[in-house]
Amino acid sequence: MIIESIITTQSQDGRVHVAPMGVREENGWVILAPFKPSTTLVNILSSKCAVQNFCDDVCVFAGCVTGFKRDWPVVAASKITSVRLRDTLAHCELLLDHIDDDDQRPTLYLKRAHEETHGAFGGFNRAQAAVIEGAVLISRLHLMPAEKIDAEWRYLTIAIEKTAGDNEREAWGWLAEKLSQHRKANAS
Amino acid sequence: MIIESIITTQSQDGRVHVAPMGVREENGWVILAPFKPSTTLVNILSSKCAVQNFCDDVCVFAGCVTGFKRDWPVVAASKITSVRLRDTLAHCELLLDHIDDDDQRPTLYLKRAHEETHGAFGGFNRAQAAVIEGAVLISRLHLMPAEKIDAEWRYLTIAIEKTAGDNEREAWGWLAEKLSQHRKANAS
Repeated sequence: MIIESIITTQSQDGRVHVAPMGVREENGWVILAPFKPSTTLVNILSSKCAVQNFCDDVCVFAGCVTGFKRDWPVVAASKITSVRLRDTLAHCELLLDHIDDDDQRPTLYLKRAHEETHGAFGGFNRAQAAVIEGAVLISRLHLMPAEKIDAEWRYLTIAIEKTAGDNEREAWGWLAEKLSQHRKANAS
Repeated sequence: MIIESIITTQSQDGRVHVAPMGVREENGWVILAPFKPSTTLVNILSSKCAVQNFCDDVCVFAGCVTGFKRDWPVVAASKITSVRLRDTLAHCELLLDHIDDDDQRPTLYLKRAHEETHGAFGGFNRAQAAVIEGAVLISRLHLMPAEKIDAEWRYLTIAIEKTAGDNEREAWGWLAEKLSQHRKANAS
């Protein structure tokens, strides 16, 4: 099972990095597989830890994937020397155990050191799910034919129009702006 | 913003009803708009209350929409004479305030009486979202052309194959069985 998470890490000189990442859980391990180059990878290798944020604010995903907003508020983690998102429903503090290195995509095996809950699950919202799918789409624009992008975008827009709140509409607007930039760059 | 919720209600003689429903929130009201005929509607009109369950178990959605499993474990609500799902991350107990009646789809306005959290949000999972979309699709099979159903189903299957856990795979299997029944009925 893959959980679309926000990973927060810190560099050796304390700079915070916030990145969406699909996280796998297997045999008790929490497994990250970032593509190189990756600031998250560099930070985990130097700090030996990371935080997995279970965040339902889809603007964090859309802001990071588009690059339009990366500076989300963080607070100190409880048991490890790192940070978590301030506005997250729950988080898990992770320690690096070992790594299977790879030229393109190393696999990091981490152990749970501490978990906390901060807010209640508000229920499934189809627009939030559409933003998550849209964020995946935006991160793969360079790999996909234009017609496939357009078809998926049209499909996802239905859930936005029917079920979004203000926050989901803002996140969708950022993804739409990025898609528009991509289309212009391809046309010119 | 519309939240895909599980609504639990009780009939006058105490029979429990579990139903997935899109719930709107507006100006402090929690708004349900069930299509007639609706057991949820009958139960709310007689009991004047309902429970909105914020449940992340997609089998509950798929089980109810397909009709393959409707008897999910419930426990008594805390402040109203009703029941909530036993296995829900959070729930909200609701009291009926007023109703805008309609021959096809009345609108019920409810007020929050009590809220409780029972478990931590586990993060976004694309397969869970695909099951929710698949459940919406299954409930609209009679309204959609076969090619559109097939295209949406293929698209949603990608997230299932890439990100599902066992529970999501079971829920998807129920939806797939229902779709298969629909195709056979249409072919004959």
